[in-house]
Amino acid sequence: MPRRVAQPLPSAIAARLEVVDDPRALGAIATAVGEVGGRIRALDTVRRGGVAGAAPDAPETVEVELEVESVDEHALVAALQPLREILALKLTRPLGKVFGKRVIVVGGGAQVAQVALGAVTEADRHNLRGERISVDTIPLVGEDNIAFAVRAVADLQRARMLVLAGSIMGGDISRAADELRAVGVPIIALNMAGSLPDHVDLVVSDPVQAGTMAVMAVADTATFDLAKQRGRKY
Amino acid sequence: MPRRVAQPLPSAIAARLEVVDDPRALGAIATAVGEVGGRIRALDTVRRGGVAGAAPDAPETVEVELEVESVDEHALVAALQPLREILALKLTRPLGKVFGKRVIVVGGGAQVAQVALGAVTEADRHNLRGERISVDTIPLVGEDNIAFAVRAVADLQRARMLVLAGSIMGGDISRAADELRAVGVPIIALNMAGSLPDHVDLVVSDPVQAGTMAVMAVADTATFDLAKQRGRKY
Repeated sequence: MPRRVAQPLPSAIAARLEVVDDPRALGAIATAVGEVGGRIRALDTVRRGGVAGAAPDAPETVEVELEVESVDEHALVAALQPLREILALKLTRPLGKVFGKRVIVVGGGAQVAQVALGAVTEADRHNLRGERISVDTIPLVGEDNIAFAVRAVADLQRARMLVLAGSIMGGDISRAADELRAVGVPIIALNMAGSLPDHVDLVVSDPVQAGTMAVMAVADTATFDLAKQRGRKY
Repeated sequence: MPRRVAQPLPSAIAARLEVVDDPRALGAIATAVGEVGGRIRALDTVRRGGVAGAAPDAPETVEVELEVESVDEHALVAALQPLREILALKLTRPLGKVFGKRVIVVGGGAQVAQVALGAVTEADRHNLRGERISVDTIPLVGEDNIAFAVRAVADLQRARMLVLAGSIMGGDISRAADELRAVGVPIIALNMAGSLPDHVDLVVSDPVQAGTMAVMAVADTATFDLAKQRGRKY
């Protein structure tokens, strides 16, 4: 299975923009950033609707969080300030510096909560030493819903590990697990019925330990190498 | 304090692109999407480096997840396919349909884990009835780190509620809480020492109940109106 090794990321800069909600606005912004050599890494609409108190005939606006690499803050502001599509601009902090790597937990509520207990507790210990690890969870039921979520982890920024917490998973969830691992996101599963345990990197029976190991595997401050554990069951 | 009411969002379409990692590539993509009337709502770099097995002289590429409104999938694909910056294109599912609204929990590990227990368990009950609510957490220590995280919640897509879980918070965290509420993200805090409880929408002593109420407040399938609870302590 092809694997990609996670590399430390170059440092990004970030800004929050209030932008006129016109289909052509982001083309103008992305072009201006590219012209000064900036590489846009993220551009997320975080709010819609103009600021409170705006004139009734003011244009519809959206607030957009922008993250850019290969350019400094001064050059970014200089490139964006002249654009008439941008009504306000404020420098912010790139999300990776605040929320860091993400461990994603998906499955049944009772088990997701126990995995989260282990993962949050372990992340606390590493974040105290300078790491930044978040634990992001969603309780879901049903093969389709869980398979969609597994595939969508490939579309999440900064997702570094998936934990599947349930009592029976297989079928399309196992296919989705293979696809996710193929793009380089490892998976830990609870020991459970169904074919899923044959399609993950590591199987752990205790949910608290599964969460703990998931965080250890992504922490630079831990000495736990998932590659050496691959295929094992605990 | 100015408040914005959350509206149901128009439906988005999504695609994952493999893009040549050139500063001008995203300008070309955003312009092409805008020309067919599409509004880009998100554009996130989810992976770097070309596909495994690519020729050694192949250009550096990144994988980008794109979400667009006001256009259908056929028109989006037709607009993007001719661009030489795009090496591969695959339709995906918008993240809002998979992971939905986000309740964010920030604070001390022991308490974050207990809030998560309540929130995940409650989200399970609503997600079973067709809601989509995620519970995203990060354990952090220190006034600066927590204040940065509170401010950064304003930059997170789909963040609908923040729970601050700790034993003493105030100072710059309270100022950050005021700023976050001013952009429309409500805050529930545990009952704790420090000034923070005077700067939030609701104070709840039991962390499991705090997590439960946070999810109830954002669920369309619940009848819990935070506006009616504002300023109370439980």
